[in-house]
Amino acid sequence: MAHPGDVSALADLIDRGELRARDIVAFIGKTEGNGGVNDFTRGYFTQSLMALLARHTGESAEAVAARIPCVLSGGTEGVLSPHFTVFARRTVDTRVDSAVSAAGDASAKLVDNVNGSLAIGTAFTAALPAEAVGRWAQVESVAAAVRAAMADAGLTDPRDIEFVQVKCPCITSARVQDALARGQSVVTTDANRSMALSRAAGAFGIALALGELPASTTDAALLSDFSIACNRASVSSGVEVTCNEVIVLGNSTRWSGPLQIAHAPMRDALDLPAVGAALDRLGIAARPQVAEADRERIAAVLVKCEPDRRGQIRGARHTMLDDTDINAQRHIRGAVGALVAGVLGDGRLFVSGGAEHQGPDGGGLVAVIAAGMA
Amino acid sequence: MAHPGDVSALADLIDRGELRARDIVAFIGKTEGNGGVNDFTRGYFTQSLMALLARHTGESAEAVAARIPCVLSGGTEGVLSPHFTVFARRTVDTRVDSAVSAAGDASAKLVDNVNGSLAIGTAFTAALPAEAVGRWAQVESVAAAVRAAMADAGLTDPRDIEFVQVKCPCITSARVQDALARGQSVVTTDANRSMALSRAAGAFGIALALGELPASTTDAALLSDFSIACNRASVSSGVEVTCNEVIVLGNSTRWSGPLQIAHAPMRDALDLPAVGAALDRLGIAARPQVAEADRERIAAVLVKCEPDRRGQIRGARHTMLDDTDINAQRHIRGAVGALVAGVLGDGRLFVSGGAEHQGPDGGGLVAVIAAGMA
Amino acid sequence: MAHPGDVSALADLIDRGELRARDIVAFIGKTEGNGGVNDFTRGYFTQSLMALLARHTGESAEAVAARIPCVLSGGTEGVLSPHFTVFARRTVDTRVDSAVSAAGDASAKLVDNVNGSLAIGTAFTAALPAEAVGRWAQVESVAAAVRAAMADAGLTDPRDIEFVQVKCPCITSARVQDALARGQSVVTTDANRSMALSRAAGAFGIALALGELPASTTDAALLSDFSIACNRASVSSGVEVTCNEVIVLGNSTRWSGPLQIAHAPMRDALDLPAVGAALDRLGIAARPQVAEADRERIAAVLVKCEPDRRGQIRGARHTMLDDTDINAQRHIRGAVGALVAGVLGDGRLFVSGGAEHQGPDGGGLVAVIAAGMA
Amino acid sequence: MAHPGDVSALADLIDRGELRARDIVAFIGKTEGNGGVNDFTRGYFTQSLMALLARHTGESAEAVAARIPCVLSGGTEGVLSPHFTVFARRTVDTRVDSAVSAAGDASAKLVDNVNGSLAIGTAFTAALPAEAVGRWAQVESVAAAVRAAMADAGLTDPRDIEFVQVKCPCITSARVQDALARGQSVVTTDANRSMALSRAAGAFGIALALGELPASTTDAALLSDFSIACNRASVSSGVEVTCNEVIVLGNSTRWSGPLQIAHAPMRDALDLPAVGAALDRLGIAARPQVAEADRERIAAVLVKCEPDRRGQIRGARHTMLDDTDINAQRHIRGAVGALVAGVLGDGRLFVSGGAEHQGPDGGGLVAVIAAGMA
Repeated sequence: MAHPGDVSALADLIDRGELRARDIVAFIGKTEGNGGVNDFTRGYFTQSLMALLARHTGESAEAVAARIPCVLSGGTEGVLSPHFTVFARRTVDTRVDSAVSAAGDASAKLVDNVNGSLAIGTAFTAALPAEAVGRWAQVESVAAAVRAAMADAGLTDPRDIEFVQVKCPCITSARVQDALARGQSVVTTDANRSMALSRAAGAFGIALALGELPASTTDAALLSDFSIACNRASVSSGVEVTCNEVIVLGNSTRWSGPLQIAHAPMRDALDLPAVGAALDRLGIAARPQVAEADRERIAAVLVKCEPDRRGQIRGARHTMLDDTDINAQRHIRGAVGALVAGVLGDGRLFVSGGAEHQGPDGGGLVAVIAAGMA
Repeated sequence: MAHPGDVSALADLIDRGELRARDIVAFIGKTEGNGGVNDFTRGYFTQSLMALLARHTGESAEAVAARIPCVLSGGTEGVLSPHFTVFARRTVDTRVDSAVSAAGDASAKLVDNVNGSLAIGTAFTAALPAEAVGRWAQVESVAAAVRAAMADAGLTDPRDIEFVQVKCPCITSARVQDALARGQSVVTTDANRSMALSRAAGAFGIALALGELPASTTDAALLSDFSIACNRASVSSGVEVTCNEVIVLGNSTRWSGPLQIAHAPMRDALDLPAVGAALDRLGIAARPQVAEADRERIAAVLVKCEPDRRGQIRGARHTMLDDTDINAQRHIRGAVGALVAGVLGDGRLFVSGGAEHQGPDGGGLVAVIAAGMA
Repeated sequence: MAHPGDVSALADLIDRGELRARDIVAFIGKTEGNGGVNDFTRGYFTQSLMALLARHTGESAEAVAARIPCVLSGGTEGVLSPHFTVFARRTVDTRVDSAVSAAGDASAKLVDNVNGSLAIGTAFTAALPAEAVGRWAQVESVAAAVRAAMADAGLTDPRDIEFVQVKCPCITSARVQDALARGQSVVTTDANRSMALSRAAGAFGIALALGELPASTTDAALLSDFSIACNRASVSSGVEVTCNEVIVLGNSTRWSGPLQIAHAPMRDALDLPAVGAALDRLGIAARPQVAEADRERIAAVLVKCEPDRRGQIRGARHTMLDDTDINAQRHIRGAVGALVAGVLGDGRLFVSGGAEHQGPDGGGLVAVIAAGMA
Repeated sequence: MAHPGDVSALADLIDRGELRARDIVAFIGKTEGNGGVNDFTRGYFTQSLMALLARHTGESAEAVAARIPCVLSGGTEGVLSPHFTVFARRTVDTRVDSAVSAAGDASAKLVDNVNGSLAIGTAFTAALPAEAVGRWAQVESVAAAVRAAMADAGLTDPRDIEFVQVKCPCITSARVQDALARGQSVVTTDANRSMALSRAAGAFGIALALGELPASTTDAALLSDFSIACNRASVSSGVEVTCNEVIVLGNSTRWSGPLQIAHAPMRDALDLPAVGAALDRLGIAARPQVAEADRERIAAVLVKCEPDRRGQIRGARHTMLDDTDINAQRHIRGAVGALVAGVLGDGRLFVSGGAEHQGPDGGGLVAVIAAGMA
């Protein structure tokens, strides 16, 4: 991935027959913009990806975008490397493992799963009107979509879920006007606050679907009661979507394939042992760093983090929140990304900020997808 | 250290009698500016520090600044925390360890050494004219100063040296005019390039003093032959100094005190095991993170790093060098700082960029000062 | 002003006897930081200024700071030049003009007024508790201080006032805790929002004192009803003050001296004719640019501006509000500063962002202090 | 132009029949990225534009890109607004003015010219190898292309030329390797310096073609002798091109149409009168601002500027060159863009930095394309 318009690595996988365009169900990736409102590398890469798939499937680019979640996080600060993970799945008539071997390409790290252990499900909700964003209606909308994605993956037990990625809409000026015109109110007119509230509602929705949300929870707890958190929830919010898009990842004996997924909560931005904990669950040692041989087994790493809103990490003052020059999310992605990359010995990992109610307050979570021992 | 004008933590140590102003010989610290040419947090903090010491010693602030090296690196990206380390030493008439106990203050981490194992020496060269910067004359000037600082520390064997910090001048427009007026030429009129050349010459000077520089080396190798590198050299360059300032840190049986120092080279920006290697030499385990009890033994951590100039780390593209929004040095400090902080479980560490010829090419080095087991 | 610690230009004026330290009543200036929360160039310059004055007056630096308003705006984007304006006044026993001639120094532009036309008054309120910030209590506190500053200047008719500069406190985490501990509530816990609310309350307070605030106005209109605006109000907010500091500038026949002041509202960020309108009132032509000879008559220019919150200027989309890389205030200062500097032919002018209720919505105001024709 | 992927304004013009895709010969525009190496808004918009034209002309997107110069400058700092200008031309069989009226669209400002006064010519050179960049070979290559573009426009007298836009390649790591492999040397391996040298060589090439270059000039004068400058040269450099692309704009009686073009040099970044001088030549008054009625006559404004490399503007220090947070080019575009926008009363103008040898040293130039009086 030489730049945000470069989809040649995926084109090669398809051209060489290692991956069928029809089997692709989701994308998660990092592009090299600033990760903020004016980060157009996400749109540029999405345009390029959808044009490529459309050429192969015969659909319009719009149709492809409407059925394949494409979760891109801008910002490859520090040692992070622009890359994307392709999630594909195929139904085969026997349980024999027929996994396409993961392509250890420098640019596109393929996560292919054929009736294997890693289970993948996706779902889209209907368009979410502005008046629902950041309120209980969104919590329920996301919960329903998570259940639908679980069903899509054939997963029935919430305990089998390791990671749920949700991308959800925010409130823009235009959407405010539209809501007011329909006689509705919105929870906030501040776009940035609406993004945080939308992520919070997404996290609550995932917790609800996984049976983790305390029964008495109301939307008053959004961005307020940080004791409520889901260690398997990863949510991003952006102007580019109008509905909630969901990717559910778990492990299932109904699936075959070489890959498995494991997550671990991170208690704060210095929680390096958490990375080892997630790797341990997959039988990969990191004392202190993943060995060269094991590194090839790792297909994807997904991290959620945030700058501690109390201004301190383990008692030492940090300066991320007051920096007018560098956005706090860029700071924390660069920091936690490097910490995880140091354990992996590899900068190709997905790191996203804005972890409200996603993992422990001030921390976040890490998930690893890796192949079993040969 | 609540802001760059806050020296209250040091004032408290002095007021409580835990540290005598007269014993202070050097400062190394991080302030929260951008670390670039227009980072005035270093000047602000230096002004504040020197005014404090002047009040206690009766000297003028200028006199204090002329005898105490004050090496400040701007930029507390990510999990890094503004802090400073005070180096003090005292001569006692017996070899009995009379070390002032290190104050585990959140802001000022005191490194005091009284006839103990950690040995500290400092030296200043005469003012370096612009025509000498980035040329062999600077290499020799720095080498002489390193030898003087070794003598100041009573260190005679280069093998006892673990870390040499040099702060050296660069070429500004005014200094170019001055050199030309005297009929001299300068190696470059580009201020940023002169800073890199000055750091390179500083590293060569340290290597020369430590007996590591290949005999046939000339200044043509500066910023050119990156196989020449010194794993114990840490150099910064700035407009605020006109001479070379040197701090030599080593271990010596002629010194007492609870502290020791150990360094290790970092082969690249993902070399997490290097941090463990330095800690191992001090008997501190980090598998994967320093234990709470051991953390209090650590008095200071010093790191030098740089964004790999070839644009890749272990085969994966990084985007630091082409980023117009965030300076590459800010990226790398945030990344390597977080990786080291993750091993330590503490964001109070010194991280400086611009590691030309300082440690392996594309990597850098880490040094740890810690107290022995109780 | 070579850097934010450089007060040599003022020191020279005092040493040469052109200005008496005792006569100084206020400072307004621009320093070269980022103008945000982590801009320490203001603190650095204030520390340097107060130390200089303390040496000359025999007071402590704290005492000087408590009686002389020092309004510094960080951010010299684009063609703007770091500089400061010194406001001084002296009582003489005749009405004969005995003005010290304005020093056309590149760094310190002296505005001295001796019984002349430009009238200067200052006032400080008592410390404002966090629960008062952004509420009616602050509006009334500022209004009282403006009246006190008018009295200090001997100004009784609000129509004689051309410009009122207020610096007021904001709400920090520590102040929130303090207020809660005393059983009080705060209007917001968001520091940035509290700064905007504080500026809004300051503008309302000025309007109230000048008799411009509609009678039925309540604090519900703060940051809400932008039809309420004062064309003579310039307010900044920061963590460094705990009370409201006020500088009132007007013209009075009870004062002598060569200088006069005139202001004009700016309807938007492209309102170049407004600059000419303010100059016109002082008899200075700018068709299109101030002539060389007239330029020396101008002692100070003060501008307030903001990025239009509706995202458009005269129907064309601007991108300031969505920029994650450069803070919107830096954008607008650089733009409006350049537009005004283009009319003046000089980049030494005070430009401050955050113009809520200060001048027309989406615009701001400009004030010029200049000497009459010789 | 709502974002860098939005070409709907042009699509509408084509769909409504106001413009034929076949008649389009060039694009000049501003996109909202950072204007640096990692500004991908230019690539995103180019991809979108070429896809649109390809759909209409039946060519491949690559073929369209190879014949239509598309000069995009990233960075809409301050009051600047993302927009693009479409240059189209048509041959008609009579000299009767058959100009398509300029569409005063907020997003796409159409410059159409049908046998009118504004004359437009374009040319592409062969690919320029890395060893030619920044050397005399590039000067001659650009000069030849300018002459070819003049011929394309039917312009024979260099005095009829008002503005020449050149886009030229720079040296990247890959191109260095390629040149070395062929046994060639390059003038620099520093990408940023190669961009400056390439712009300088482009300016020299334009001056050569226009008969302005002193006879004895050699490439030693590039970025060295700033007394050599061309007031009609505007050059940008980027990794995205491998050959020199040229757009020549002038006035000719052999052309009809309502539009004319006029330029004026800017002596420094505060040269506001220069804007009036260019407008004067087109019969448009700006004393101080263009009147509402005249504003509609203006089809495009093109500006080139740079931060004065001596660190001062009219004797006052500026801080653009030492700013680690904001790139100097972003500063100067925001400043000079606002100054010109203030005269126009419109933020939709093309402003590009890097004006080495393009207009007076430290200044630049401005060109205006406008329709004659009705």
